[in-house]
Amino acid sequence: MSTLNNSTNVFWQECQVGKVDRQKLLNQKGCVVWITGLSGSGKSTLACALSRELHSRGKLSYVLDGDNLRHGLNKDLGFKAEDRAENIRRVGEVAKLFADAGLICIASLISPYRKDRDACRAMLSDPNFIEVFMNMPLELCESRDAKGLYKLARAGKIKGFTGIDDPYEPPENCEIEIEQENGVCPMPAAMAGHVVSYLEEKGFLRVQ
Amino acid sequence: MSTLNNSTNVFWQECQVGKVDRQKLLNQKGCVVWITGLSGSGKSTLACALSRELHSRGKLSYVLDGDNLRHGLNKDLGFKAEDRAENIRRVGEVAKLFADAGLICIASLISPYRKDRDACRAMLSDPNFIEVFMNMPLELCESRDAKGLYKLARAGKIKGFTGIDDPYEPPENCEIEIEQENGVCPMPAAMAGHVVSYLEEKGFLRVQ
Repeated sequence: MSTLNNSTNVFWQECQVGKVDRQKLLNQKGCVVWITGLSGSGKSTLACALSRELHSRGKLSYVLDGDNLRHGLNKDLGFKAEDRAENIRRVGEVAKLFADAGLICIASLISPYRKDRDACRAMLSDPNFIEVFMNMPLELCESRDAKGLYKLARAGKIKGFTGIDDPYEPPENCEIEIEQENGVCPMPAAMAGHVVSYLEEKGFLRVQ
Repeated sequence: MSTLNNSTNVFWQECQVGKVDRQKLLNQKGCVVWITGLSGSGKSTLACALSRELHSRGKLSYVLDGDNLRHGLNKDLGFKAEDRAENIRRVGEVAKLFADAGLICIASLISPYRKDRDACRAMLSDPNFIEVFMNMPLELCESRDAKGLYKLARAGKIKGFTGIDDPYEPPENCEIEIEQENGVCPMPAAMAGHVVSYLEEKGFLRVQ
């Protein structure tokens, strides 16, 4: 029996079907691809392209989109510092469950603070957490402004907006960095290909 | 753009790979099997046996165990009424994600209040939420007392324990009810077989 902060009398239940069995069934290895970057940097675009490319190879993935989860699991959370941290913690915990289920879980969140991302990395055994940094210049993200949020932030109508009046802390040791080449953004398929190559090389797309 | 209670400026991101595609890949339909009942009624036993039986048929399932999640996603929650409700809400939200991912998600929680279970049912489209009621007499559950919790509850060392000093509200319209037959509990494989037959009959174990 374990005693946790708020949870006593809670037992750990082991099941006979485990991660290894599910991985064999799927012929892939469960992991988390964590895509971080500014609003407008192309996180969702990459997430979608990646899930398409994996699906075309017969691999099962699932996208956890930070915005979408705020409509469900995280709808009780706002944008205060502690809510943002809790938002990311929960996504990390759910991503961990999906990886344990054998899926390639693609988490797509701004996740601006290193500390929060590193806490998610620490939840998983290290090689199963693949951090992808969308390293796009703020000017580019702001010029896209597909959701009109930068405009609102510049007008002071959104406070604490990442990149404008709240910092983005770039990863120091991410597994994959996506950046412009000769001033041009890579196409979605190329970004996805980059990540798929990494997954293939590291053995996530098959079971030995 | 949507405005939610605490979340503004949150967009819904659609991906081109959807539930239907994932279901085709897995040749099964995503759903939630929600197992409810007293502590010691055999919820975890059924969850394990069911996941084994599904796995032996090449079907992908994943068990969300109420106790296990209290070590991770729900470790900030205790056993106050509002914490219990939030615990169940989050498990429901995560189960919904797993069903959307195409898995047969097996949620195993006491979930004593009808209101909380019905809220989870409402999150999913109805036929995809399969409520399984472990209808075992309190005396039997208490006599098993594998975790020693009933003893603690009777001694007043645990307050608000379901069945002792907190109510269990039985489902009124559950899809499956597991009960004793001639005073004998069904074996785990028989209980799992019951659920698998239901899933098969309703078409969850294949894609048309």
